[in-house]
Amino acid sequence: MSDPACRLAAAAAVRDALREDLGDAGDITSTASIPSETRMRAEIRARNAGVLSGMELARQAFRQVDPDIAIKERAADGARLEAGETVLSVEGNARAILAAERTALNFLQHLSGVATATRALVDAIDGTTARIVCTRKTTPGLRIFEKAAVRHGGGANHRFGLYDAVLIKDNHIAAAGGVRPALERAKAHVGHLVKIEIEVDGLDQLEEVLAVGTDAVLLDNMAPGTLCEAVAMIHGRAISEASGDIRLETVRAVAETGVDCISSGWITHSAPALNLGLDAV
Amino acid sequence: MSDPACRLAAAAAVRDALREDLGDAGDITSTASIPSETRMRAEIRARNAGVLSGMELARQAFRQVDPDIAIKERAADGARLEAGETVLSVEGNARAILAAERTALNFLQHLSGVATATRALVDAIDGTTARIVCTRKTTPGLRIFEKAAVRHGGGANHRFGLYDAVLIKDNHIAAAGGVRPALERAKAHVGHLVKIEIEVDGLDQLEEVLAVGTDAVLLDNMAPGTLCEAVAMIHGRAISEASGDIRLETVRAVAETGVDCISSGWITHSAPALNLGLDAV
Amino acid sequence: MSDPACRLAAAAAVRDALREDLGDAGDITSTASIPSETRMRAEIRARNAGVLSGMELARQAFRQVDPDIAIKERAADGARLEAGETVLSVEGNARAILAAERTALNFLQHLSGVATATRALVDAIDGTTARIVCTRKTTPGLRIFEKAAVRHGGGANHRFGLYDAVLIKDNHIAAAGGVRPALERAKAHVGHLVKIEIEVDGLDQLEEVLAVGTDAVLLDNMAPGTLCEAVAMIHGRAISEASGDIRLETVRAVAETGVDCISSGWITHSAPALNLGLDAV
Amino acid sequence: MSDPACRLAAAAAVRDALREDLGDAGDITSTASIPSETRMRAEIRARNAGVLSGMELARQAFRQVDPDIAIKERAADGARLEAGETVLSVEGNARAILAAERTALNFLQHLSGVATATRALVDAIDGTTARIVCTRKTTPGLRIFEKAAVRHGGGANHRFGLYDAVLIKDNHIAAAGGVRPALERAKAHVGHLVKIEIEVDGLDQLEEVLAVGTDAVLLDNMAPGTLCEAVAMIHGRAISEASGDIRLETVRAVAETGVDCISSGWITHSAPALNLGLDAV
Amino acid sequence: MSDPACRLAAAAAVRDALREDLGDAGDITSTASIPSETRMRAEIRARNAGVLSGMELARQAFRQVDPDIAIKERAADGARLEAGETVLSVEGNARAILAAERTALNFLQHLSGVATATRALVDAIDGTTARIVCTRKTTPGLRIFEKAAVRHGGGANHRFGLYDAVLIKDNHIAAAGGVRPALERAKAHVGHLVKIEIEVDGLDQLEEVLAVGTDAVLLDNMAPGTLCEAVAMIHGRAISEASGDIRLETVRAVAETGVDCISSGWITHSAPALNLGLDAV
Amino acid sequence: MSDPACRLAAAAAVRDALREDLGDAGDITSTASIPSETRMRAEIRARNAGVLSGMELARQAFRQVDPDIAIKERAADGARLEAGETVLSVEGNARAILAAERTALNFLQHLSGVATATRALVDAIDGTTARIVCTRKTTPGLRIFEKAAVRHGGGANHRFGLYDAVLIKDNHIAAAGGVRPALERAKAHVGHLVKIEIEVDGLDQLEEVLAVGTDAVLLDNMAPGTLCEAVAMIHGRAISEASGDIRLETVRAVAETGVDCISSGWITHSAPALNLGLDAV
Repeated sequence: MSDPACRLAAAAAVRDALREDLGDAGDITSTASIPSETRMRAEIRARNAGVLSGMELARQAFRQVDPDIAIKERAADGARLEAGETVLSVEGNARAILAAERTALNFLQHLSGVATATRALVDAIDGTTARIVCTRKTTPGLRIFEKAAVRHGGGANHRFGLYDAVLIKDNHIAAAGGVRPALERAKAHVGHLVKIEIEVDGLDQLEEVLAVGTDAVLLDNMAPGTLCEAVAMIHGRAISEASGDIRLETVRAVAETGVDCISSGWITHSAPALNLGLDAV
Repeated sequence: MSDPACRLAAAAAVRDALREDLGDAGDITSTASIPSETRMRAEIRARNAGVLSGMELARQAFRQVDPDIAIKERAADGARLEAGETVLSVEGNARAILAAERTALNFLQHLSGVATATRALVDAIDGTTARIVCTRKTTPGLRIFEKAAVRHGGGANHRFGLYDAVLIKDNHIAAAGGVRPALERAKAHVGHLVKIEIEVDGLDQLEEVLAVGTDAVLLDNMAPGTLCEAVAMIHGRAISEASGDIRLETVRAVAETGVDCISSGWITHSAPALNLGLDAV
Repeated sequence: MSDPACRLAAAAAVRDALREDLGDAGDITSTASIPSETRMRAEIRARNAGVLSGMELARQAFRQVDPDIAIKERAADGARLEAGETVLSVEGNARAILAAERTALNFLQHLSGVATATRALVDAIDGTTARIVCTRKTTPGLRIFEKAAVRHGGGANHRFGLYDAVLIKDNHIAAAGGVRPALERAKAHVGHLVKIEIEVDGLDQLEEVLAVGTDAVLLDNMAPGTLCEAVAMIHGRAISEASGDIRLETVRAVAETGVDCISSGWITHSAPALNLGLDAV
Repeated sequence: MSDPACRLAAAAAVRDALREDLGDAGDITSTASIPSETRMRAEIRARNAGVLSGMELARQAFRQVDPDIAIKERAADGARLEAGETVLSVEGNARAILAAERTALNFLQHLSGVATATRALVDAIDGTTARIVCTRKTTPGLRIFEKAAVRHGGGANHRFGLYDAVLIKDNHIAAAGGVRPALERAKAHVGHLVKIEIEVDGLDQLEEVLAVGTDAVLLDNMAPGTLCEAVAMIHGRAISEASGDIRLETVRAVAETGVDCISSGWITHSAPALNLGLDAV
Repeated sequence: MSDPACRLAAAAAVRDALREDLGDAGDITSTASIPSETRMRAEIRARNAGVLSGMELARQAFRQVDPDIAIKERAADGARLEAGETVLSVEGNARAILAAERTALNFLQHLSGVATATRALVDAIDGTTARIVCTRKTTPGLRIFEKAAVRHGGGANHRFGLYDAVLIKDNHIAAAGGVRPALERAKAHVGHLVKIEIEVDGLDQLEEVLAVGTDAVLLDNMAPGTLCEAVAMIHGRAISEASGDIRLETVRAVAETGVDCISSGWITHSAPALNLGLDAV
Repeated sequence: MSDPACRLAAAAAVRDALREDLGDAGDITSTASIPSETRMRAEIRARNAGVLSGMELARQAFRQVDPDIAIKERAADGARLEAGETVLSVEGNARAILAAERTALNFLQHLSGVATATRALVDAIDGTTARIVCTRKTTPGLRIFEKAAVRHGGGANHRFGLYDAVLIKDNHIAAAGGVRPALERAKAHVGHLVKIEIEVDGLDQLEEVLAVGTDAVLLDNMAPGTLCEAVAMIHGRAISEASGDIRLETVRAVAETGVDCISSGWITHSAPALNLGLDAV
């Protein structure tokens, strides 16, 4: 997450999150209970095994609260963590560290949850040629970080928004009056560096799509058997993507059909948080 | 979620979420594949049973994209939804409806997930005197909405941030040099309308706390038997709150110990999204 | 004012204040009349005696205009200043120092005025058990800094906004249909860490309130004699707060009635600025 | 205050002030104590006599909280109010009106205080040819509104910031190496639509200034007798402005010296708030 | 420019532009010289022939200044205007119309300039199969509107930023260690909906590129004869784009080589403004 | 451009421009094609001769993307550049340098274009007493930088916005009911540090204006002969400004009429960009 776009976005996201947690009165617990000059050493540790993501945000949370906190990263985004493993050490003013704690943890827990869920799917299809990709079913305001977390978990990114690729779904096909008019209109209108993907819900529709031509095909909610047939029909003429109720138990069967990509909304919208905590040392 | 604070916050959150999804190029799929004047009627429906939350955000997503979309709410925040139930109808320009769709759904899915998880815990302790409360383990940027979703699910809110109540935890006690100095300093420093809660990890510490006096006690990670003893020791002199690994299977046993509140981070940081979708009609 | 919430808020407030004063053309006087490399040493001094507040904002004003200005703080927030006393020394580029001067002074003058007014009331009740508290009658946009200034003047903070405590006033009682329904509804609805205060305008109403129970009572516009009776009736069952036309001449008589808190809007909305100026040295 | 610049600035200022007062939890008192559908009629009334300013901000406070509140303005900015006079009537949802009340009043009280103080000075010099002008000693973030309040009180505006006119003060003269180099540099550098004013602290310096030529002269801290001499020396060759400890008791003597402008920082930085309140009717 | 992304961006851009022009003091000319109730009818007219772009921004400029100004659009984005043709009529308060005038015109003049320049190139290659595309050489802050203006002028959009397509240029090739490693790394890393274009500066490099495979090739600064050879070598295996000193005099010769796209930075960074003005009627 | 107003504005403008170019996915080309640790040295060079402007923005573009890039300025704003001359050297991470490149160049190209165009006019009137001034016909959002670029090109600034001087044009005269009422109203209403300029379209109107008195006169669209007469009529009683279709070929004849200022919209709204590029070294 150290590319400039993420770093600049993190500065704003952390500032807003700190404002959300500190309000105007600030951390009244620390101010009221801890002498102002008390110092502290602490470590953020994983309570469960998982994959790390969100280090830039955690670092900035401590830095924005107090630039004098010494921060030492002990693991990098994408690292596989064991339960108990330390990911970050901080040393400095106790009030400042405790004021930043929850903001740092909230980012880390959520994003490491996304990375961990992604990694579980990626590991489950190990050895196949498919790759796990995300969707636009992300948490509003955090998409840039969740997309990075998917990469940290070994997945790849689908489009980032409505703006960077065409994905024609059932509602577009209906509104456009069919597969052919939708696809032909799209091919005529888009810029020369924009790819087009189209959703098909059956093999008949797939045939129609392949006749017109497309960059990629979204095979929605198909059983593994049907997917196999679809892959055979496509025969390298388009990228194939399977979607629909992708779960840990079912993903390998999907991958073994030979599809190129398997997209999952679950890894971003429903991944449970990875449990991390701050311990004084 | 119709109080002014939520409504004003929703306006900003929706604007940012739309910008995140539309980028500069906008919805290039709809623009490329659907004629500009095509109209559409569609409904947002729950694919699974659950509790609804986020209607203000969904409404604003459609309205900000196109003020001419006619919106009809068919269910209210807090409603128990059956699978297949319609929550919102829209009618208007097809491109506009499809440009707003994902933003509206991303808010609704996430917040209804929080409300649904909360409701599950609330229902599980039905008949006891305990109430389910949330924590500060929320998604950065969405706390105000998640706090509302907890209420829609039948739960109550804990403090909103570091600023509105004192909660002295193990790290504060350590940094302050013990329960008594931490608690006495806090009581001397806080404003006259600020309540104080303190975490205890055993009955000895509880006794020390009760001797000094406090508004509320956080009983962390105690077994039901110990909780019963703690409740008996407190004997109405403070509000009691149980926390630590609260799950659907364990929550009732905790509630039956007689504690006043049971706090869960899981309902905000790990609740799976409720599945909702937009269907053309 | 060095807690993180104030520091982060100060960064934004100073940036906006500089933009307000510099506009697009900047400090055209300095640019037009002073050679670009001219250096300067200057001191901010109090022209009158008073209590200092706003040092974080003054420091940031100079730093944001030019990070190369050397700043030396000679007094701290809360210090009692004599007329002529120096609070801050700066040395650096003359144009930069003069561009920041008014912004730094405007914050310091206003906030030191609040601290000075607060201190006057606090000193006037010295030896009593009452404390001076502020209200929500603050300058829009500056509440966080004025609340800190009240603390610097020896006062304590009342609630920070509508969000962090319940204060039921005459209009709420009327709209709710009486003291009892208002108070009972409030007790049933608020979170377990929220305190409730209620305004009473006479001893009859106080009796009704005490019968239902509350955390605090606001005794509005009562004569000292009535306040004494009220304190006696409350008898430690609630925190007592007196308000209404609190002036330097009257505050001691109020404090001697035994009330716990005395709230004053005057210290934030009408405190005259403390006169401070920048002198070249 | 109905010009577009004020109206657009008011929208942002009110939004920020509401956020400051409502926080994330909103008006928990009204929510907890008043049934959601309760309606209310109320009036904002002056408790003391004074001059009104800030109506655009008051109106927007109610409108932003709830666009369904019916608002009726009963007096206009600049009106002389008697004690008890109504300035604004509102009718609508009780929770919404009470949530907006303090924000509306905080703006009105402060700005009407500025207008009232200005008017007092203006009335005190009635019949002379001088006019009362403001300074840059304003409340950070509120300058645009305070400048309007000065106009509502019958005063005129000095420059709005560092950017719209040149005002060479003692520190500039010192840094530039004297009156002549400061003034000559300034005249050579500024744009053709920028006026130049220069501060003089004695008649010798005035003579030097008049020899070089300037648009206006700031006569700082001069006794009325000296001011008379200065006005005679200037003899219409520049606009004359008197400043320094302008108070209600002294302002007329200054005005009668024949100066064109009398500037006062007191009217913006130290004017006591005008007492206004909201009464249910 | 009526798609939601443009409309939402226009709201912010117009607000900032008005603030830039109005400052705090507002339109002091109109306020000082025109009675407050004076009404006015006026028309924005093209002083020269050209292609219109920016109507959404012009409309919002008048609307934000005063929602009561009646606005009538007389031409649409993309229209070919004759000298003297009216594009927009307004009627309302004279001060408000004149306060919005320059902001509306500054957007219209600049964007219509871009559309007009684009149209000139598009017309010059009429009958060929090439299309004119833009670049990222846009005015900071206005890219979204300039991209729309290019479409209004009959051109097509290249990528919108660094984020939506890969374009490997000479510096990337050098840093990556050659065409093959750059291209192979890119193909392995990008998402399945991202297209790849690579710049070549000669036919040798083109051959190397075609051997590895790519979606598009940027033929930089090639003479028409070389371009013809390049197109023949590519033979439909990639999209071809010519760039480098594209001018009105040279563009047709480039188009006739058979390239698919011709990109021009000039149409966004150097197009002269189209002259438009507001006339009272 | 190193005054504080420009520097603070540049920080915001660069941040927005980077966000515009990087989006959420960032520089996917560099990330995909260049190894993460690759280092690079590069220089920004002028491809054509011209005058430099925008260095603060270029520097901040590199610094915001990566504070570790070493930046060395080789020329200063206002410098006359020869073709091939280096203006800035950078050394650091290759991905970071390439991510910042276009943002830095877009600012530099545009602003150096403005400075170059201004310098051309200034050089063309060398030896006359006139000076070249800009207008409010600037690019929305960039006015502060374009005003500086005009100064870098040897020009002077006209007013910065509607707020800092009065300029009565034909539409104001019409709305006010004539030259005399417009001018007299303005003189009575404006602050004592505000100058007044009025547009005249013929010698009759000029006579009327001079009878009332004004600070400056805008002589619009007059032929050189008429300008000479106008200058003679004014005879030093007001500053004279000529405007209307000022081009390189015509400007000297205008300057030789003896007018004080010549204003040009062309230098800001239509100046072609100066060609600059980044070369790896």
